[in-house]
Amino acid sequence: MTDGSDLLESGILLPGSAAADAFETWRTTAPAVRARLLRAIAEALEADRAAIVATADGETSLGRPRLEGELDRTAGQLRMFADIAEEGSFVEAILSTPDPQAKPIPRPDVRRMLVPLGPVAVFTPSNFPLAFGVAGGDSASALAAGCSIVVKGHPSHPATSDACARAITSAIGTTGVSRALVRDSHMQAVAFTGSLAAGRALHDVAAARPDPIPMYAEMGSVNPVFVSPAALDARADAIADGLAASITIGAGQFCTKPGLAFVPDSESGRRFARAVAERLDKWPAASMLNRSLATTLDRDLESIATLEGIERLTAAGGEAVESRRAATLVAADEETWNAARELRTEHFGPFSVIVFCDPERMMRAARLIPGSLTATVHAEPSDREWAARLTDALTTRAGRIVWNGYPTGVAVTWAMHHGGPYPASTSSLHTSVGATAIRRFLRPVAWQNTPDALLPEALRDANPLGLQRLVDGEWTRRRL
Amino acid sequence: MTDGSDLLESGILLPGSAAADAFETWRTTAPAVRARLLRAIAEALEADRAAIVATADGETSLGRPRLEGELDRTAGQLRMFADIAEEGSFVEAILSTPDPQAKPIPRPDVRRMLVPLGPVAVFTPSNFPLAFGVAGGDSASALAAGCSIVVKGHPSHPATSDACARAITSAIGTTGVSRALVRDSHMQAVAFTGSLAAGRALHDVAAARPDPIPMYAEMGSVNPVFVSPAALDARADAIADGLAASITIGAGQFCTKPGLAFVPDSESGRRFARAVAERLDKWPAASMLNRSLATTLDRDLESIATLEGIERLTAAGGEAVESRRAATLVAADEETWNAARELRTEHFGPFSVIVFCDPERMMRAARLIPGSLTATVHAEPSDREWAARLTDALTTRAGRIVWNGYPTGVAVTWAMHHGGPYPASTSSLHTSVGATAIRRFLRPVAWQNTPDALLPEALRDANPLGLQRLVDGEWTRRRL
Repeated sequence: MTDGSDLLESGILLPGSAAADAFETWRTTAPAVRARLLRAIAEALEADRAAIVATADGETSLGRPRLEGELDRTAGQLRMFADIAEEGSFVEAILSTPDPQAKPIPRPDVRRMLVPLGPVAVFTPSNFPLAFGVAGGDSASALAAGCSIVVKGHPSHPATSDACARAITSAIGTTGVSRALVRDSHMQAVAFTGSLAAGRALHDVAAARPDPIPMYAEMGSVNPVFVSPAALDARADAIADGLAASITIGAGQFCTKPGLAFVPDSESGRRFARAVAERLDKWPAASMLNRSLATTLDRDLESIATLEGIERLTAAGGEAVESRRAATLVAADEETWNAARELRTEHFGPFSVIVFCDPERMMRAARLIPGSLTATVHAEPSDREWAARLTDALTTRAGRIVWNGYPTGVAVTWAMHHGGPYPASTSSLHTSVGATAIRRFLRPVAWQNTPDALLPEALRDANPLGLQRLVDGEWTRRRL
Repeated sequence: MTDGSDLLESGILLPGSAAADAFETWRTTAPAVRARLLRAIAEALEADRAAIVATADGETSLGRPRLEGELDRTAGQLRMFADIAEEGSFVEAILSTPDPQAKPIPRPDVRRMLVPLGPVAVFTPSNFPLAFGVAGGDSASALAAGCSIVVKGHPSHPATSDACARAITSAIGTTGVSRALVRDSHMQAVAFTGSLAAGRALHDVAAARPDPIPMYAEMGSVNPVFVSPAALDARADAIADGLAASITIGAGQFCTKPGLAFVPDSESGRRFARAVAERLDKWPAASMLNRSLATTLDRDLESIATLEGIERLTAAGGEAVESRRAATLVAADEETWNAARELRTEHFGPFSVIVFCDPERMMRAARLIPGSLTATVHAEPSDREWAARLTDALTTRAGRIVWNGYPTGVAVTWAMHHGGPYPASTSSLHTSVGATAIRRFLRPVAWQNTPDALLPEALRDANPLGLQRLVDGEWTRRRL
């Protein structure tokens, strides 16, 4: 047992074997200790707010208001995982009482709960320097679980990472070293937020280890939006406003950016598409996170422009200066979309695709969407039956269904799920945002016929932590 | 919605795309329908009891009493997963209520639950033709989750598999076809019980897919037993009885067979080792599941015999006739054990290794154990402090801690955990036995701001299923 202060003092962000040593201490800390550390990190971030925001703004050109909000969210999710650690039911305590008369064999006393997985390698992305950064959601949920962490800061914003972390290991700054970190035999899990190419490469390294470890990569997502004829009739302008804002927020560099919108193949659908394009043309071009992302987008758009059946709806756009880019909207019919892989892939930046599609064919399109973080439906009460079928189909392809809203903006709450079938993530069973993000870093252990004093507190007869437990199939807070 | 009878009639065990079609129907069935099917399978197995047991006995030489018990267990776990489906909280319903005033952004209504993963490829082992067979625990938990299944029966007992399943696909009978099944783009998860070599090969195929899928392989395990000096003083004979029985039950072909026993490096430790050997010498040689397993064991034992520092404790053993083998016990000191990889690997069959070891060094040995399904501690109240440290260390290497007992015999209960760090399994976060086995085949989905009528029943305001739900961080069965 430690009171956590030694880890806080020395920095908890340590390479390889040091992380393994830290894990031995950290995994046995009481929930209150973990909560105290998480809240202390939140307070430290807030105390350094001015400097951290200035540094991050200098490195990322995201702007102070956005970064202020991101710092609030980062501190908020650290405090949420402090609450989760204290609430305690994340250990999923399940107890089976003994039955000496059971057939075919007597049933022993078995008590089961989750324990921390081990040192976790956390890979941070370019687009959220704070909320998914060194002290972001992956780090918060891993620390709350009782895991130690090694964080690879993103090269886009090293000074911001430095400002967030007490210690930073410059040795883990290159892709070659990233692979080495995933191969490091001490690491017991990997958390990654970033591109499909990088995430897949590290997934392959994790899977090829002599002892494969869980790799939680949150990667690309097209986040389709489906709009019904009745929704267009009722509120086309409002949807065009919301969609254009969702495409351009963060210069289109959110993992939940709507990259595809299916609208009715009708005059009102075409009018709606033009309305979205007009709004995008009025959007002032914005700097992307770095030059390399901007040139990747340029290359993607050139390739898409050569596709047959593609119509560009936005104006040619202003000159591309440095990493500043205007917004681009293209349109295609459902056949064209169906045939072109480029239109079913995430393109990072202020860009989206409108697909003109009969509402009944949207059912088929829903099943052809690659695994996605979100899927959004705009419909009216008169569409109820259609919307029910569409929503049901979308649950097989997406991790979050958004109703009459927009996918950007991921609330950090108990119920949030931020994940989805591949390529949205490498593990559709788990989330990188929300309370259940902690489950990624825990594994079950069962104790059989073990004396009460040797059991973890969560599993003792008296239920000293007052947890909600599943006892012989019944949920209860009672003692045994 | 289906009442399930069509699936029951036509057989639910279908290849590739047919399983994908079946999934579309099965995933939407009500819990009561799934429960009815699972109970119907249990009843069908019991109705055919005589024929199934006779067939399995003919193919596996496991003996009727063992197979009768296994049929009971198989029917019992089908009924347990029927109960789990009806109880309903396996969907892990979590609700976050909206807050329009939240900073930095308003908080939406988000409701999250688990949904079935998709078609599951189930690979069955040789050593449990019924309990881990076509209608075994993997099939039961996948069906309860709402997944369709394609089962590859083990070639050791095709007629038994036939007797358990309505339909069997002879096309999936070879390893090449096993790989093809794992590669099949319709499959969304793989459940496997068998050897490390085969499990690892299929894990690599699953990880290398264009869209990697979860691969749940339960593989080899050494299941170490640790015995304290005080335990030997108090009950050496009883422990020797229990250990010898646990080594030989099922001819040593249980995944939980104790393959290693750490005993004090003392005169009483050596006396205990001889006592176990005497009991093993009295054990009548038994037929292994097939000839190939017997010759693999012969080869392993020859290789171990050449190691320096190894002492054979059992007699030379009778002649090996066909697949019949006598039990073998060898001993080594801790240094020898530490240096020899062959002594840290599972060897299927009636064989175990005694390691003479100072109780304090057992702490170090505990950390060198490869990931294991179980770890067992024999200790007395006077050893409490030593046992607490040892048990804690073992939780990092094993999925189940057995106190003053024996690892064989896996109770199918709510709290059971049957899994562990690699190579015990490819996914230490999940279990193949017990209520939580269902979690392998479910993925979370969140619904945001969605009208009540379009939500799954588990997430509706009125809580019509009466589930235990986590609402804004509080466990409750109340309506919203």
